Amino acid sequence: MSLPKNVRLVEVGPRDGLQNEAQPISVADKVRLVDDLTDAGLAYIEVGSFVSPKWVPQMAGSGEVFAGIRQREGVTYAALAPNLRGFEDALAAGVKEVAVFAAASEAFSQRNINCSISDSLKRFEPIMESARSQGVRVRGYVSCVLGCPYEGRISAEQVAPVAKALHDMGCYEVSLGDTIGTGTAGDTRRLFEVVSAQVPRAQLAGHFHDTYGQALANVYASLLEGISVFDSSVAGLGGCPYAKGATGNVASEDVVYLLQGLGIETGIDLNRLIAAGLRISEVLGRATGSRVAKARGVR
Amino acid sequence: MSLPKNVRLVEVGPRDGLQNEAQPISVADKVRLVDDLTDAGLAYIEVGSFVSPKWVPQMAGSGEVFAGIRQREGVTYAALAPNLRGFEDALAAGVKEVAVFAAASEAFSQRNINCSISDSLKRFEPIMESARSQGVRVRGYVSCVLGCPYEGRISAEQVAPVAKALHDMGCYEVSLGDTIGTGTAGDTRRLFEVVSAQVPRAQLAGHFHDTYGQALANVYASLLEGISVFDSSVAGLGGCPYAKGATGNVASEDVVYLLQGLGIETGIDLNRLIAAGLRISEVLGRATGSRVAKARGVR
Repeated sequence: MSLPKNVRLVEVGPRDGLQNEAQPISVADKVRLVDDLTDAGLAYIEVGSFVSPKWVPQMAGSGEVFAGIRQREGVTYAALAPNLRGFEDALAAGVKEVAVFAAASEAFSQRNINCSISDSLKRFEPIMESARSQGVRVRGYVSCVLGCPYEGRISAEQVAPVAKALHDMGCYEVSLGDTIGTGTAGDTRRLFEVVSAQVPRAQLAGHFHDTYGQALANVYASLLEGISVFDSSVAGLGGCPYAKGATGNVASEDVVYLLQGLGIETGIDLNRLIAAGLRISEVLGRATGSRVAKARGVR
Repeated sequence: MSLPKNVRLVEVGPRDGLQNEAQPISVADKVRLVDDLTDAGLAYIEVGSFVSPKWVPQMAGSGEVFAGIRQREGVTYAALAPNLRGFEDALAAGVKEVAVFAAASEAFSQRNINCSISDSLKRFEPIMESARSQGVRVRGYVSCVLGCPYEGRISAEQVAPVAKALHDMGCYEVSLGDTIGTGTAGDTRRLFEVVSAQVPRAQLAGHFHDTYGQALANVYASLLEGISVFDSSVAGLGGCPYAKGATGNVASEDVVYLLQGLGIETGIDLNRLIAAGLRISEVLGRATGSRVAKARGVR
């Protein structure tokens, strides 16, 4: 067993997290959250999404958030660009790295973005072309990699071609997301075994939800497969849109605690990260979703 | 990587769980819980503790609980016997298997049972002798194996001699408990590597608390070390006495879900187990601590 010595966390709380919280918060509160995360030592923060506020009111003002945050040298501040319009808006806001989003489940793709997987990939082509010409890096997400709320179980063989397509079209990294959190450790290992035949392990990331309590076991299983990049959300922001009262994104604090225990370096100050999570939880008027924060005797 | 094909869960909810819930419940409710667990297919249930109700009011009436439950052939119904008096009371109640309890931390032993580790082991000698002569099996617990609320980190080298002493004095199985839930996967693996030099792996069990969210990752790490017996508590009964609002014992439902995902047989019906957990949670007037139960859309 040889684990990676360093892990990079991709902090998705300000985007994936806040997007799935019921209540939109102010630009000032978002700026404060991102600044807190910068101060905690995160090297990659997904700051917002350039999408119509009619569809996703929680992401309104992402341009103002980018204008307001302190950008520390060496830290990546990224945005989700669901389409070319969003991509252009992101660029106009000075964003240097974007993320695009496909699904491994046909039914999820249809219901979530109203088109087939293959159509969704085609729509990224102009984004990729423009990104290439302007020196903007693009990260790819694949959702529903271990299960789908409509189709049930998803096989690694369904995920591999989608991950390969994103990689082939120029995504420098592809994040595999267990969107509904049903996956367990053995499936996680098999997923990376199969997908890594198409995309090198160094260009794959794991994105786990803790809905069934499996996220940290899946992170550990991924580490054993040589994966060294993980998405997580401070305070477990986001919840689970498919099961009321259940948890969604794994809490960054809990992942950092695991990694510290394994002697893996992240560059993150756990105490400052906990403090950032408690502050945003207070803004949202909810308890933190981080077990580590709770165990330290705070809500 | 070769995982065990079968795992035995030791259900500690009715004892370790209820003992740490603030509110004592009736004998009838306890009987119902144990019967529900029998019906769910648990092969081992720790039913109660023979201890003075002055000290632990939650465990009052353990004899009546034993008298009231349906005992299914092939299922072990055990009790904790903290001392010789408790052991004799357990035998008088018809108990066929008992558990004894030591700590890997000197400070915890002093504060929890008011004597040194070595004195606590000496006190078990008359129990072991009597048990041997009467054909009663004894299981041993070691607490604080990865951390102590008073001493902090505990090394595997501190645990090994205590586990060996219990094994040498006749415990057929020794359960290693991360009482405060601070341990992570790498420490868990090292723990079993070191302790298994003194006690065979087939006679070791893992007992994890989810306080820091690490329990399932630790179960998975233990499986990779060849451990095939785990203690768990339905609905996560028990909470954490050291951190208000935090979780304690890992929920049996969540462990079963992980094991099913890994293709490991337990003989347990997950739906019936979830139902048993929801019923006792309702009796206690609290939400279930099982993520799987919550994810299925119920509280």
